[in-house]
Amino acid sequence: MSEQFDAVDVIRAKRDHGRLSDGQIDWVIDAYTRGAVAEEQMSALAMAILLNGMDRAEISRWTAAMIASGERMDFSGLSRPTADKHSTGGVGDKITLPLAPLVAVFGVAVPQLSGRGLGHTGGTLDKLEAIPGWRAALSNDEMMRQLEDVGAVICQAGSGLAPADRKLYALRDVTGTVEAIPLIASSIMSKKIAEGTGSLVLDVKVGSGAFMKDIDRARELARTMVELGVDAGVRTVALITDMETPLGLTAGNGLEVRESVEVLAGGGPADVVELTVALAREMLTAAGQPDADPAAALADGRAMDVWRRMIAAQGGDVDAPLPVARETEQVLAASDGVLTGLDAYAVGVAAWRLGAGRARKEDPVQAAAGVELHAKPGDRVRAGEPLLTLHTDTPERFGRAREALEGAVRIEADGAEVAARPLLIDRIGE
Amino acid sequence: MSEQFDAVDVIRAKRDHGRLSDGQIDWVIDAYTRGAVAEEQMSALAMAILLNGMDRAEISRWTAAMIASGERMDFSGLSRPTADKHSTGGVGDKITLPLAPLVAVFGVAVPQLSGRGLGHTGGTLDKLEAIPGWRAALSNDEMMRQLEDVGAVICQAGSGLAPADRKLYALRDVTGTVEAIPLIASSIMSKKIAEGTGSLVLDVKVGSGAFMKDIDRARELARTMVELGVDAGVRTVALITDMETPLGLTAGNGLEVRESVEVLAGGGPADVVELTVALAREMLTAAGQPDADPAAALADGRAMDVWRRMIAAQGGDVDAPLPVARETEQVLAASDGVLTGLDAYAVGVAAWRLGAGRARKEDPVQAAAGVELHAKPGDRVRAGEPLLTLHTDTPERFGRAREALEGAVRIEADGAEVAARPLLIDRIGE
Repeated sequence: MSEQFDAVDVIRAKRDHGRLSDGQIDWVIDAYTRGAVAEEQMSALAMAILLNGMDRAEISRWTAAMIASGERMDFSGLSRPTADKHSTGGVGDKITLPLAPLVAVFGVAVPQLSGRGLGHTGGTLDKLEAIPGWRAALSNDEMMRQLEDVGAVICQAGSGLAPADRKLYALRDVTGTVEAIPLIASSIMSKKIAEGTGSLVLDVKVGSGAFMKDIDRARELARTMVELGVDAGVRTVALITDMETPLGLTAGNGLEVRESVEVLAGGGPADVVELTVALAREMLTAAGQPDADPAAALADGRAMDVWRRMIAAQGGDVDAPLPVARETEQVLAASDGVLTGLDAYAVGVAAWRLGAGRARKEDPVQAAAGVELHAKPGDRVRAGEPLLTLHTDTPERFGRAREALEGAVRIEADGAEVAARPLLIDRIGE
Repeated sequence: MSEQFDAVDVIRAKRDHGRLSDGQIDWVIDAYTRGAVAEEQMSALAMAILLNGMDRAEISRWTAAMIASGERMDFSGLSRPTADKHSTGGVGDKITLPLAPLVAVFGVAVPQLSGRGLGHTGGTLDKLEAIPGWRAALSNDEMMRQLEDVGAVICQAGSGLAPADRKLYALRDVTGTVEAIPLIASSIMSKKIAEGTGSLVLDVKVGSGAFMKDIDRARELARTMVELGVDAGVRTVALITDMETPLGLTAGNGLEVRESVEVLAGGGPADVVELTVALAREMLTAAGQPDADPAAALADGRAMDVWRRMIAAQGGDVDAPLPVARETEQVLAASDGVLTGLDAYAVGVAAWRLGAGRARKEDPVQAAAGVELHAKPGDRVRAGEPLLTLHTDTPERFGRAREALEGAVRIEADGAEVAARPLLIDRIGE
C-alpha cells in the first residue's frame, strides 16, 4: 500500500454520500486489517455504508481489497472444472450434503468450504460432525488430493482466507451493521472468490427463516453478488428460494444427515430433492455440462457412491448409526384441518434451543437435537395427531423450545385456500 | 439505571429511522460512560444519529442523560442573577474577554467556563494565559467567591461536568461524526446546563471561519440549542453572526488580549464593539435588566475596572506588558483597489501555523504568535502597503502561514460593488 489516507476523510466521504476511490478502499481495508484504522472508525464507516450505500464499482473494489488481505487458493492444477455453491442460510437447509457428491458424479470438482451455525440457522460442518469420526479441518494438500480422487470435499475454511472479512464480520455483529447489502455481498463473495472456484451458484433465501425477509432486498443481494462474481471472472448465478417454512422435514444436525442420506438413496422430501436438483443443474451448466441429468444420478445410486467416498475420505464412518436424542416430545395438532403455515424462524429457534445450535461461537452443539416435522403446509392434519417431534439430550430445554413454537403453526378449516408458495422464486444470472 | 437494553437494539432503532425511547437514551449514555457500551458501538450510533437525526424530545433527553453522567454546579446561593454566553467558535473571536466584565458591571454574575483552542479557532483560556501570572484552574469555592466579589470569572471547566460528553466528543473527533447537529447541540448545552446558569446567550457563527458554513445549518443548530435551553429551564437566546472574515483586527492570543483591552478602554474595532454590546444587551435582558446601557459602561471605564479586578483575582498582572513575538513579517497588498474579501478560515489557519494554536490537545501555544490585520473588507488599499502582519517566535513557520493565506485576500478595482455583510444576521429566541 503506497498511498496514505486519513480514516476520518474516508468516513466523511461516504457519510456525505460520496463515492470511495479505489485508493481509499484499498487503504482502509488494509489499514483496518493491520489495526491502523480503529474498530470505532470502521464501525462508523460501516454504518455510513449501510445507510448511504456503495455502487457496483465500489463494492467490487471493496471485495477485491478483502481478498487481498489474505491468501488465495488455486484449483487450476486440478484436472476437472470446479463449481461451488453458497446458501445465505435457512432452517433445515441441508442441501450442501447431497449436492456436493451429486455434482461430483459428473466429473466436476466441488470444493465446498463451509461454516458452523450461529443463531437459528444451522451450519453444514455441525451437521456432518454428527457422523462418527468425520473431521472438518483439512490441510490444503488434503483438500486438493480429495478433490482429485473423490471430486467433492466439504471442509472448514482456513483462517488465511480474507482475514479482513473475519475481523469486519465480528465488528458488524456488535454494531448493528450486519444488514448492509454491500457488506453482506462482499463478505460472502470475498471468501468465494479467494477460494478460487471457477463457477458459483448462490442460493439466496427469502422469508421468515432467512436473513432477508423481503423479496426486494433478496433480489438486490442476489444481483449484487452476481455482479461481484462476474467482475471477478467467476461464472455466477443466483436462485432466490423460499424460506417461509423449513426445508424438508428436519432441522437439527444428525436429523438432517439422515434426511440427506434418504435423498441420496433416491427418496427424501420432495422440496429437498427439487432444490438439490435445481442447484445441481445450475452448477453443472456453469461448469460446462448443461446436458447432465442429476435426478438420474440420485435415483441410480451414483451420488450415494460419491457421498460414501467423500465422508470416508475425511474419517467418517458412513455405516455407523447416527446419534439418537435421549428424549423426545411431540407437538400435537390442536384441530382438524389444513396446515397452512409452519414458520421457519420459529422452528429454527426451537431446534437451536433444543441444542442443535449455539448462542456463542465457542459453544458445543448436540448432534441429535432438533425438530422433526410430520406435516408440511398444504397437508391435512387431524386434532391430536403429532405435528412435530422435538429431540434433545437435555429435556429441561423442551419448555423454551415450545415457547418458540407458539403461534408458529397455522391450521385452517378444510377447504381453506392454501396459497401455493413456489420453492424456486427467481433466477438471477449475468 | 434500572432498565436494561441491548446496544445493538438501540443502534438498530436509530439506524432504521426510529425514535429512541427515554429508557434507551438514559441507558446508552450511562452504559457508554461506564464502558459497558463499546466505543465501536457508540460510533455506529453516532453515525446513525448524524444521518437519520433525532427529534426535539430525543435531543432533550440525550442532553439530560449527559448532564446526569456527572456533577452539576449550583449558583443559587449567589446574591446576583447569572448569565452566560457561548460562542460556537471563530477566528479573532475574543468577545468573551470584554463581555464578561461588561455584563458584571450591572450586578449580573458571569460564570464563564471556557476552553482551549484546537485547530484554526482560538480558545479563550489560551488568550488569557498570555497575561503574566493569570491562571485558568479555579476550585469551585474560588469560583463562587470571585463571582460574589468581582461578578465575573473566566476559568476552565472542571472534569466532573458531563464526562459522557468529554468521552463522546473525543470519539466523534476520530469517527467523522462531529458534524451532527443533535450531537453538537447536546454537547454544548449539556455543559452549559450542568454549569447551572440562569440564562444563556449563544453566538452561533456562520461562514468560512466557523464550524457551520451555511446559514440553514447555523439556524438549525441555533434553534436546537435554544429549544434545549428552554426545555431545561434556562432562558436562552441565540444570535447568528458572520464569520466570513475575522472579528476585529487580530487573531492570536496576546494580540487578542491587547485588542480586548482597547475595547474595554472605550476604543477598539467597530465590529468587536458592536458584537460585544449586542451580546451584553441580550445577557442583561435575559437576566432581568433590559434597560441597562452596556455601551456607556465601555465608554466610561466601568467595564475596564471589573476587567482589572477579574484578571487580578486569578493572579494576572494587568499592568505587565504583553509578550511580543520575536519576529514579524508583512503581507503586502498586490494592487490598488478595495479589499472585498479577507477569508476568516485562511487567517485562522495562518495564525494557527504561526504558533497561536495547537494541532494536538497536549501541544503548547505561543502567547505572542498570530496575525494582525491592517485593513478590513470595504477598506481602500494601495499596492505595496501592508495588509497583514504575521507574528511568531519561530520564523521557520512564516512559509506555511503564507501558504495558508494564498487566495485569501481579494482586492477589486475602485468602484467595485462591496456586498455589505451584516455582522448580526439573525436572532433566535424562544
